[in-house]
Amino acid sequence: MIARPELRSFQPPVRTLMGPGPSDVPPRVLAALARPTVGHLDPAFVGMMDELKELLRYTFQTRNELTFPVSAPGSVGMETCVVNLVSPGDTVVVCINGVFGQRLAENVRRAGGVPVIVEDPWGEPVDPAKVEDTFKAHPEASLLAFVHAETSTGALSDAAALAAIARRFGALTLMDCVTSLGGVPVLLDEWGIDAAYSGSQKCLSCTPGLSPVSFSEAAVARIRARKTPCQSWFQDLSLVLGYWSGAKRTYHHTAPVNPLYGLHESLLMLAEEGLEAAWQRHRDNHLRLRAGLEALGLRFVVREDARLPQLNTVWVPDGVDEAAARTRLLKEYGLEIGAGLGVFAGKVWRIGLMGHSSRPANIALCLAALKDVLG
Amino acid sequence: MIARPELRSFQPPVRTLMGPGPSDVPPRVLAALARPTVGHLDPAFVGMMDELKELLRYTFQTRNELTFPVSAPGSVGMETCVVNLVSPGDTVVVCINGVFGQRLAENVRRAGGVPVIVEDPWGEPVDPAKVEDTFKAHPEASLLAFVHAETSTGALSDAAALAAIARRFGALTLMDCVTSLGGVPVLLDEWGIDAAYSGSQKCLSCTPGLSPVSFSEAAVARIRARKTPCQSWFQDLSLVLGYWSGAKRTYHHTAPVNPLYGLHESLLMLAEEGLEAAWQRHRDNHLRLRAGLEALGLRFVVREDARLPQLNTVWVPDGVDEAAARTRLLKEYGLEIGAGLGVFAGKVWRIGLMGHSSRPANIALCLAALKDVLG
Repeated sequence: MIARPELRSFQPPVRTLMGPGPSDVPPRVLAALARPTVGHLDPAFVGMMDELKELLRYTFQTRNELTFPVSAPGSVGMETCVVNLVSPGDTVVVCINGVFGQRLAENVRRAGGVPVIVEDPWGEPVDPAKVEDTFKAHPEASLLAFVHAETSTGALSDAAALAAIARRFGALTLMDCVTSLGGVPVLLDEWGIDAAYSGSQKCLSCTPGLSPVSFSEAAVARIRARKTPCQSWFQDLSLVLGYWSGAKRTYHHTAPVNPLYGLHESLLMLAEEGLEAAWQRHRDNHLRLRAGLEALGLRFVVREDARLPQLNTVWVPDGVDEAAARTRLLKEYGLEIGAGLGVFAGKVWRIGLMGHSSRPANIALCLAALKDVLG
Repeated sequence: MIARPELRSFQPPVRTLMGPGPSDVPPRVLAALARPTVGHLDPAFVGMMDELKELLRYTFQTRNELTFPVSAPGSVGMETCVVNLVSPGDTVVVCINGVFGQRLAENVRRAGGVPVIVEDPWGEPVDPAKVEDTFKAHPEASLLAFVHAETSTGALSDAAALAAIARRFGALTLMDCVTSLGGVPVLLDEWGIDAAYSGSQKCLSCTPGLSPVSFSEAAVARIRARKTPCQSWFQDLSLVLGYWSGAKRTYHHTAPVNPLYGLHESLLMLAEEGLEAAWQRHRDNHLRLRAGLEALGLRFVVREDARLPQLNTVWVPDGVDEAAARTRLLKEYGLEIGAGLGVFAGKVWRIGLMGHSSRPANIALCLAALKDVLG
């Protein structure tokens, strides 16, 4: 027998989470996680699942029947959308202006699709004119995929304009709203978005690990009309559907019961505040943080009209050891801010004001700590 | 705007969970879930990830470096094993003696593999002689896949014998130990199992949503030698590795932070008790429950030498409305037992004594409630 390790319970430090997610989780949500576990087919749990779908429809501003949380992180939400909507050989217009657009393209490739890339510089929004030109050159494209709020750069793209172009060319639209949902308007039905995925740990302020998704009737029709089965058993929506909807719920996989309690509570808190009030709070707190960052001499990466209020990306000042600075923030102040990803690694900081983290107290701490660390 | 729903916090009922999982979650684990969320790249969290791997190696009885929890339910652990180990065109011997063997075969098909089925009746263990004959007929087979403890029937197969056959034919072995891990001996290294996946919500007594996996050096070598990329981005172990091991941890996906606190605590409790003591407890409590069930006139589905102590499958007596009986157990006693799946639907009950649910108090409640309901 291999001997048992001598270890103790893990007591995490208390942090203030102002990176690109996870964001601070409110005590109400943490308390919900610790409620007694029930079975995944318990009638009481099935009732809660129905409420979750209703709360998600409000959050996504959609009437889509097929709206539910995937039992896995946002990356799986992305993959679920791609492997269901893309059949081998399909042409997909994929917009890349950061890490997550790249990941979308990689998912399309692995699903056997042919991505046609629309590239924009990191830190800029997707250019609708380029998307239009690409559809003209590829009228066979059946899907447009883009990232609404690029978590790697802090840029917001014009989802309504992009979806309108796809619609004109007879294509469906798939939108990543991992970082946008709950922080800025996300209006699936008004904009005509056919499929969207998000994450629980950003502006929804739940713990990481769940990925809300929603599919329009046109998306469901495409899934139903597939000639080849979805390559993933777990992500095959034609199978998942029996568990998340219908009169009789049938076993598909064992849902993550307690994390779903947490998501229910966090969505309820958002509904209590109201979406418009939450968007306004994110805007107000962004302006407050921005004033302080600019007073410290920090410059924003993204131009003002495409800047995400919930994810503030600034250039690391010349001569500053950015990793050492983040380590000091974490060790001395218990404050987490985000490093750069991909081509932005070592060059930018990403300061999140997402969900419960978007509070004046967090801003005051962040500005005071940054002032100290930047000397 | 779509109006906000008027809902309240979800307060789950308190249940006694004696189905096929989730099982009762001890208060220590529930409390761990509610600890403060930290970032998924926080040094404190990375330290806990290392402890988790160590605890899982003890639980699986393996020295495999590549041992970690997949950030999703057991079905994704299964799919992760299959899509990494199976390349298009590979022949895979798949043993089917219940629902989860069927699911393995379906996963092999969707990964482009060619399953060769070894079929045994539901309720019986996998027959090693049939596996041997199948390998003789299919010497090209590169993988054997089987379910150690069939959750749909309660039958335990002889993993050591099956892995030895695969080894003789130069094939790797993939084992489902979702229901066995922590309840009966699972000895990956001693038996020569190359890949295994489990679930957090059975004999580990954590909440559902995580899937511990482990891969031998031979399995890792096969993954490294793949000529086609893994079809799944999220499940591609060559990418996941950078986050779960190595000197510098790189971002892959955002790990489910709080659920991992829970898994750490539940594995720690198992290590404190000791694997041998836990196996003995499961055996002792099974005998106690068995005596009571037989006194009620209930008959076991599985023959004695292949019976799982943690999952007791009995025939529903003639003339009993099984769904109505389960509803009474749930409503009057807050007791959940499992229904039959697949060909066993409506014919059997599955009574779990898994992990924290394997306690004399639960057995006393279950027997008294069944006696009442069976009248």
